[in-house]
Parts: sequence; structure tokens; C-alpha cells
Amino acid sequence: MQLDVMYHRIKQNWSYAYDEKTLHIRLRTKKNDADTVVLHCGDKYGWEHTNSSVPMLKWATDNLFDYWEAAIQPRYRRTVYYFEIRDKDEVVYMLEKGFLEEAPPVIYEGLFDFPFLNPIDVMTPPAWVKDAVFYQIFPERFANGDPTNDPEGVLPWGGTPSPTNYFGGDLQGVLDHLDYISELGVNAIYFNPLFQATTNHKYDTQDYFKVDAHFGTNEKLKELVDACHKRGIRVVMDAVFNHSGHTFPPFLDVVKNGPESQYADWFYIREWPLEVKDGIPTYDTFGFEPIMPKLNTANPEVREYLLKIARYWIEEIGIDGWRLDVANEVDHHFWREFRKAVKSVNPEAYILGEIMHDSMSWLQGDQFDAVMNYPFTNALLDFFAHARIDATEFSYAIQRQLASYPRQVNETSFNLLGSHDTTRLLTLCKGNKDRLKIAYLFELTFVGAPCIYYGDEIGMDGEHDPHNRKCMEWDVKKQDQSLLTFFQTMIKLRHEHEALRTGSIRFLPQSNPQLLVYERESANERFLIAINNSDAAAVYSLNADYKWVDALTGDNMESGNGRFSLPAFGYSITKVKM
Amino acid sequence: MQLDVMYHRIKQNWSYAYDEKTLHIRLRTKKNDADTVVLHCGDKYGWEHTNSSVPMLKWATDNLFDYWEAAIQPRYRRTVYYFEIRDKDEVVYMLEKGFLEEAPPVIYEGLFDFPFLNPIDVMTPPAWVKDAVFYQIFPERFANGDPTNDPEGVLPWGGTPSPTNYFGGDLQGVLDHLDYISELGVNAIYFNPLFQATTNHKYDTQDYFKVDAHFGTNEKLKELVDACHKRGIRVVMDAVFNHSGHTFPPFLDVVKNGPESQYADWFYIREWPLEVKDGIPTYDTFGFEPIMPKLNTANPEVREYLLKIARYWIEEIGIDGWRLDVANEVDHHFWREFRKAVKSVNPEAYILGEIMHDSMSWLQGDQFDAVMNYPFTNALLDFFAHARIDATEFSYAIQRQLASYPRQVNETSFNLLGSHDTTRLLTLCKGNKDRLKIAYLFELTFVGAPCIYYGDEIGMDGEHDPHNRKCMEWDVKKQDQSLLTFFQTMIKLRHEHEALRTGSIRFLPQSNPQLLVYERESANERFLIAINNSDAAAVYSLNADYKWVDALTGDNMESGNGRFSLPAFGYSITKVKM
Repeated sequence: MQLDVMYHRIKQNWSYAYDEKTLHIRLRTKKNDADTVVLHCGDKYGWEHTNSSVPMLKWATDNLFDYWEAAIQPRYRRTVYYFEIRDKDEVVYMLEKGFLEEAPPVIYEGLFDFPFLNPIDVMTPPAWVKDAVFYQIFPERFANGDPTNDPEGVLPWGGTPSPTNYFGGDLQGVLDHLDYISELGVNAIYFNPLFQATTNHKYDTQDYFKVDAHFGTNEKLKELVDACHKRGIRVVMDAVFNHSGHTFPPFLDVVKNGPESQYADWFYIREWPLEVKDGIPTYDTFGFEPIMPKLNTANPEVREYLLKIARYWIEEIGIDGWRLDVANEVDHHFWREFRKAVKSVNPEAYILGEIMHDSMSWLQGDQFDAVMNYPFTNALLDFFAHARIDATEFSYAIQRQLASYPRQVNETSFNLLGSHDTTRLLTLCKGNKDRLKIAYLFELTFVGAPCIYYGDEIGMDGEHDPHNRKCMEWDVKKQDQSLLTFFQTMIKLRHEHEALRTGSIRFLPQSNPQLLVYERESANERFLIAINNSDAAAVYSLNADYKWVDALTGDNMESGNGRFSLPAFGYSITKVKM
Repeated sequence: MQLDVMYHRIKQNWSYAYDEKTLHIRLRTKKNDADTVVLHCGDKYGWEHTNSSVPMLKWATDNLFDYWEAAIQPRYRRTVYYFEIRDKDEVVYMLEKGFLEEAPPVIYEGLFDFPFLNPIDVMTPPAWVKDAVFYQIFPERFANGDPTNDPEGVLPWGGTPSPTNYFGGDLQGVLDHLDYISELGVNAIYFNPLFQATTNHKYDTQDYFKVDAHFGTNEKLKELVDACHKRGIRVVMDAVFNHSGHTFPPFLDVVKNGPESQYADWFYIREWPLEVKDGIPTYDTFGFEPIMPKLNTANPEVREYLLKIARYWIEEIGIDGWRLDVANEVDHHFWREFRKAVKSVNPEAYILGEIMHDSMSWLQGDQFDAVMNYPFTNALLDFFAHARIDATEFSYAIQRQLASYPRQVNETSFNLLGSHDTTRLLTLCKGNKDRLKIAYLFELTFVGAPCIYYGDEIGMDGEHDPHNRKCMEWDVKKQDQSLLTFFQTMIKLRHEHEALRTGSIRFLPQSNPQLLVYERESANERFLIAINNSDAAAVYSLNADYKWVDALTGDNMESGNGRFSLPAFGYSITKVKM
């Protein structure tokens, strides 16, 4: 067996507390290298009366590796451990200090150590997120409910969006369409920024304590949040704390007074005066965007100011969480303080970071609950939209992603198929709604909180910004009602079945490279989902040991040979009859 | 090349800020697999005008892997990057999203990302530790300077230690011997616990605000700390915050009042009443030791109480740091608060955790400055004391250890060859003082802060506890004066040469398996150290491109063929003549 491919390091996704009693221990081996792995574990102060040997499950695999996992509940909340790894011919013992050919004679020295399961250290995202389906709303483009607050020069609803134009979307518009949102079945909304700013996207905050006048008032937001809550819908807002806008009064003061400004240390000024030379501002910004000066979150005044905002909207307006813009460019110390501030006013608030990369360093219980799961997005786009990878490669990408985080992180991950920052899914699918449907089908039957970008559910398309921010189509005749019904049905199904939300997932390899088959299983339910990602018919099998029903119709799945056909881009969701 | 052995993951020891401007990026490859690695990096918002290609240095190697490193200073404090890895026949590009055979056409998507170098996140241990040589004192056994505070039943100095007996060591005894300590050359003392407790080792604290009456008074400690500071000696104390003693008043209150006690939540009671069943207390403890009840550091009252202690001794007595007992069993949240509290009263205080295992999770800038480097200890013992491994294996163990942490962690690591918890080095060396000398020689010419356990420098031996806690030998005739001179000489040499403290280290492979040769190099100095770890003579070479002098005598190293002989267990420390 190949020792140099085996990997384990304490903490992160390799050994972590899943809850106050349970540790998950994982090991990586070279693909198809090991046949069995046993975890030997026990209390370092009393190995003799506590030790046990636990077979590990090969729970995931990708193109290079197999991933093994065991869950244990050490009586005294601490364990030392080592791995026994076998193939047909060989056995090797893996310890922290290295590899041995025989089981270690000394039970403590050199073993891996999970020193103590302190409950306060357990990474615990809010429980409700496991059961949430999100709907993302870009406020300027969802619905214009109150023409009296329209910006000057507002254009008629449905025109061509530009980076700078306005169509009058507002909070009253959202209030007016809560029935629509409820009927879609989502139970959470993520709003792009709502605070006073100069742009139509509002990522250049001018006043962090005030809803943008074009959207409404703080009171209107409170009315909306209350109305959402009555319907069982939670509300998450965008927090733009990496940078402010250039009209943010402290920045204006720095522009005016230079180094003498009392706010000079609120920003990162590389060189006075503030100016833009050859396209590069002399102060740190988001990207090289002069209107978005980066905030110095290491400055205690700035920190206190931003934490006050974080608490304010939860306490006064009752929002249920924050989505953190450009989260990975802000310091870790700030996010630790942020988490404390937010959880002190609402322990169930969701803290969601915008990070497009591996985010393990932010997901260890002290900073975020989740990140926007762009690696998930990219895998789905590569398979369903672009057909760049086959079903096996897709399943590997998904499993690699699952293996890179603790289970609770995966359970409350924010899974998206597009946003205000990306080309719309339907456009990436070249207008093929069947492809869009099966991509969303996967998202809605996968672990983590799925999100639907407003309008995807009725067939809206659009290239990259500004075209992904078109006005929501409210003309029922122009909405794809059949697609909308598909979304309603799938969301309802997800809400009805725990297995589709938090059940285990297992991919079943197929000879047809475009056929994706996977199981979701919880204590009381077992689903098999088959998706045909091609324009040719495909055939899948159901395990004849069980009786299966179509989860959508309730019909028995009957076939002489246990084999079933799927049309082009067809799918089936079947459930074991209990 | 073997892709599944290549490893990189952002943060931890793989990509980190070394200082406010510099990032270190590292990659692991299979041993002897890659010939060159180039780091391609640039700003994700302006790749075209910022990108560069930096050759990486193969800076360490062990039995399985090669480790590559590059240091970069991104102009705008952020970088995305990928690796170009080559051998004779092949080239591969490693990105976050996987491996490519051609350089990535898209410069951002899928690359590794170091999103922003926020200065507040830089792991910054106190600068003085890089230049420190520690002396560890077990107070009850160092010197009895004040017979009036002796415990009842005190035994004559120099008797046989038991787990429970007393010889009267105290703070006045240390004060009386500060000349000795100064002459040894150390510039820092680590004291085992000094607070009021019932045992001779004082790890069962009764009163966290009071020096143990057998050791002296708080005023006496202040006098000692002031006297040390006058001599340029810093003082670090033991903080036992994982557990208290059973005579700690809050625990006594719980014993007395049970669940009704106002302190019931200060401890982890698994089951009432408090008792010991079959050797297992019904409450969490250190190990299964009933007299050491584990403190509930998640309880805000307990946290505030302990943080007050942490500040008190720094503010009132002026100590320079804390060594944290059983540090890995206390929750991470507590240690983050602890760091803030300690650094708020002395930013240069040293926070040193007792962890015997891989400690990356505690060494990322938010918790500890360093840990007691037991993996280093074990490697040295295996080579110098037990002769279980040869020089190559030893160099691999050392390099693996260096590669597992950021550079600044290695520079301020607490390197020890024994303590109150281990058998004395001389005993492990079976009384062979030559072996002890070359082990300490390595420690004193290696990166990190070396520590000498009291008495090792004069030839004291002793089996495991209690025999490793014998009374310090003050009879000059019974002290090994030649050994003491060796320590004084080596410590002086270390203080004189930056290269021996923070220079780079490079092991030079030898055909003689017992011959260890390594270089230490800084901007202005270059040393070569040769150590013969055997009872047969050995021969080493000096690079004839340089003129070398013996660093201890100043004599020119002259030989016709550049080859020099070392006697059994001999060593030479040579320096390039500038």
C-alpha cells in the first residue's frame, strides 16, 4: 500500500466533534489501495478499560483517493487513536509519529490525540438551515411595489438592465409577492444589500443604519420581516463589511481632511493624497474599485461600529442572519468578534461567508456557519450545463467537496446554481430547460441548503452582470408555469423527506457515462434518484430486494427485470416502500 | 510524477503570513519525484500587471516527501497562485481545483487564493523568545534559601525524593543562586507552579492569587522577578487552568453543597454525588485524578476568574509569560480570550502551551505563541540517547517537524530535552555524558528557544518522577565542572551568533550513518557543525571554497584534503572566516 498518499491530521475535517458527544475520525488512502481500515481508540489515561476497535466506512471516493470515516462517542470525551490499514497482502499501522508494521506496543506515545471534546468548541450551525430552501432576491429588480420611492430616471419595468440604470424594485414589491414566494415553497430569503448606497446593487454602502430610500424605510423592512416570519420564512441580509462606499461619511471626512481626519485609520491608506494613479487607488479597496475603500477592521473603533450594525438589524428588525460580502479579505479576528456579537443577540442567526475557495479556516466553529458553496456550483455547471465532465467525474467532484469539510458544514452549506455575480443557469445551459431542471433537481435532493436565484424558477435567462439582474417577470403568460410547478413540486418533496435533506449520500457507479444514480438514506427513508444527463434514453436499475415507489406520484415501480428507462434528460425519484 | 502525493491547502503551515508583508507558500511532493517547482502568482483583480513566477526552494526532505517553499511580498497584500511542477520528462500544473497538463488559461478560476494579508492575523510570537535560552526550575527542589518557611517534616537537602516528601526549596533559594544562573548564561527561567497547593509539585492549585507559603510570598516573587529582570532574565510561570486542586474553595463548596452550590457549574459533574467509583471520579478530572477536578472554562464566571489571574501576575508581579499546563484539553475559545487578556497587559508576554502532539490548531496567531516541542525531544532522544535511528533518519524527523509549522513557530518553539515529567537525559543516555553533551549541543545550535532542565548542566541523573525531581546539587565538588563549562561555552556561543538562533538550517548527507553534519546560515554568518554520535572516530569535510575557523577557539581549520577527524562522540563547530 502506498503510505505517502495516506493522510490524517488532527482537527479540521479529519478529526472533529460532530456534536457534544460524537467525534468523527477520517482517513484518506490512495484510491483502491486499502481493503479495510480499523480505528483503534481509547482514553489515554485508561486505555485498558476504554479501548475499542471500530471498522471505518469507505464513505467517499474521488479520482485519486478513498475517504474513510468512523463516528465514536468516547465515554470521557477524549481519545487517542491509530489506524490499522489492510489490503489482501499487507497490514500497516498509521500513528501520528509515522507508520509501523506491527501494532504499537506503547498505547499512548506517538498516537494521534483528540485531547478533549469541549462542547463550546463544537462547530454548531443553526439547526434550521438544514431544513431551509433559500430564494435570492436582488431588490432593485424583483418588484416595484411603491412608485413613490422610485429613483429619478426610473425606467419602465422589464427594460434592458445596465450597470447603472434603475427599475424601481423595492421592499413593498417583495411584500406584494409574498404569496408567490410562499407558494414556491421556499422558507428563507437572501437579500442582496438593502442599505443606502449610490449604485443599483448597493455594494457601496453610504449608511449602514438605513434602508436605501429607493427600497423603502427601516419600518417597511420590519413590516416585511414580520410578514415573512408569519409565513415561516426567514430573512438573511447582505453585510458589506470588507469595504464601504465612497460616500460613507467617515471616508468623505478622510477625503476632505487627509491624514488629519479622525477617520484616517478607518481605512488602509497606502499613500497620501487619496487618488487613482494609472487605475490603481492609493488606498486599499475592493479589487481596484475606487468607490469601495477597504475598511480597517483591525481598528477597534471600526470593529465596534460594524458590530453595532451587525447587532442592530437583528435586534431591531429581527433578521435571521448575515451573508458576508468578500468575507475572506476581512481579518479572522474581526469575524470571531462578529460571531460573538451576532450569536449574543440571536444564537440561531445564520452567518454565511462569501468565499469561492476552500474555506476550512473559516468553518471551525469560531467564525462562519457556512460559505456560499461555489465548488459545488462549479461541479454542477461542469456536468449539467457544460457537459465537460461525465457522471463519474461529477460524483468524484461532489465527494471530494464533501470530504473536505466536517459533516455539519455540509449539512448547512449554502448551495447555489447562480447569483447576481454569475451568468444565469438557463443561459449557461444554452436555453435548454431540461438541463436547468436536472441541475436544480440535484441541488434540491442534495445535502445542504439549496438556493434559487429569483426568476430561475420561471425560466429567466441572462448573461453576466448586468444581464443576470433583469426585472423579475410578473406577466404570468410569460412565466414558464410548467417549470414553476416543477420547482414547487421538488421543494415540497424536499420539505417532506428528511432523507433528502440530511440523509447520507451514496453514488452508484453506472456504465452509461451520462447517467447519474445516487441514494439518499436516513433512519426511516431510502431514496434512489436517477438522472439522465443526455439527449439519448438511458436505463437504470432498482435493487430488487426492496419494493420501490415513485416518490412524486406514489405509483409502484414495476418491471420484470428491475430495469427502467429514462427519456432524454429524464429523471426518476424513487423511494423504498416501508 | 505522483500527483496523489502532492499536497497543498491554504493557511496553516502551507500558506501563511510570515510578517506584515511576506507570505510563505509551501508545497509537498513525493520524495525525489520533482526536479523543480515554480510558483506562479499575481493579484486576482489585476493579474496582468502584477503576476510573477518564483522558483521554489526544496528546503526540507524526509523519508517520504520533499518540501518546497517560496517567500513573496504581494504589492496589494493578496495573491492567487498555482504551481508548475517538473521532472525530466513531465510537467504538471497544480491548482486548487486539481491538476492540469497545461498552464491554466483562466487566471483566476480554480487557483489557490491567499485572499488578503491582514496584519492583525499574522502569527507574531514575542521577538525576545528567538534569542532566549531557558532554564527550568522545579521550585521545591532547586534551593532552600529560607528555612523558616519549610513544610512540616522537611527532609535534609539531597535526600531521596518521593511523590510526597519535601526538601524546602523556595524562592529565596533561587534568589541566592541568581549568580549561578547568570553565569550559566541563560536569559529566561521557566518555573513549575508556584501557587498555594497541597502537593510538592503544586499542580493542584488551592489559591491562584497566592505564592505557596512554603515557597515564600507574593512580595518575595516580585523581588525575584525584579532581580531577574535586572540581570536580563525573563520569568515564565506555570498556569494550571485545565483543572484546580480539590482544596480550591469553589470545589470545596461543590463537595459540600452539591448541585445547590453556586459553583456547581464551575466543574464538569457527570453524576451526583461527587465520588470515586472503581477508580473513576463521577466528575471530569485531569486523567482520572480525583484531586484535580477539571474546570469548566466555557462558564463565563470561570473564564473571567482565570483571566483575572492571567493578568494579575503580569501586572502586579511583572512575569514575562505563561506555560499552560494540559493546554490541549482546555477549549479553544478560552485560549483565544486568554491571549487577548495576556497581550492586553503585556504584548511581549510568551504564551507556551503544553502539548505533546501536532499543535497546528493552537499556533495560528489566535491562541499560543509556542508549544513544548516534544516531537523535537523524541527525535533527539531516539538519535543521541537511544541510538534507535541513524543520522539520516534523525535529520528527516527534524525536517518533518520544521515543515509542519510556519517558520515563526519554529523560531520561538520551546525545545527541551527533558522536564519534571520525563526521565532525566543523563539516565536515558545510560550515564554517558558525551551523549548528553552532543544532544544539548544540537539543541543549543538549533532554531527555537532551547531549555535546560535544572541540574542537567552539572551531570544530575534520575529516573522518572519522583527521581527526576532530586534536589539540586550545590556541593561544587559533586558538580561536574567540566560539563558546566561546556554548557556555559555553548550558551555564550549561541548568544553571540544570530545564525545559530534564526539562521536557515541545512543537513549535509554523510555516508557514515552516525555522523550528523549541518549548516546554519544567516545574512552574515555561516556555520558548519559536525557531530559524531558513535564510539568510533569519524571523518567530516569542510567545503574548500571557504576558509573555516573553529568557532570555539578561533583557530584556523587547516588540513591538506579538507577532511577532519572527530573522536568518539566528538564534535566540531566551525565558521566561515569573513
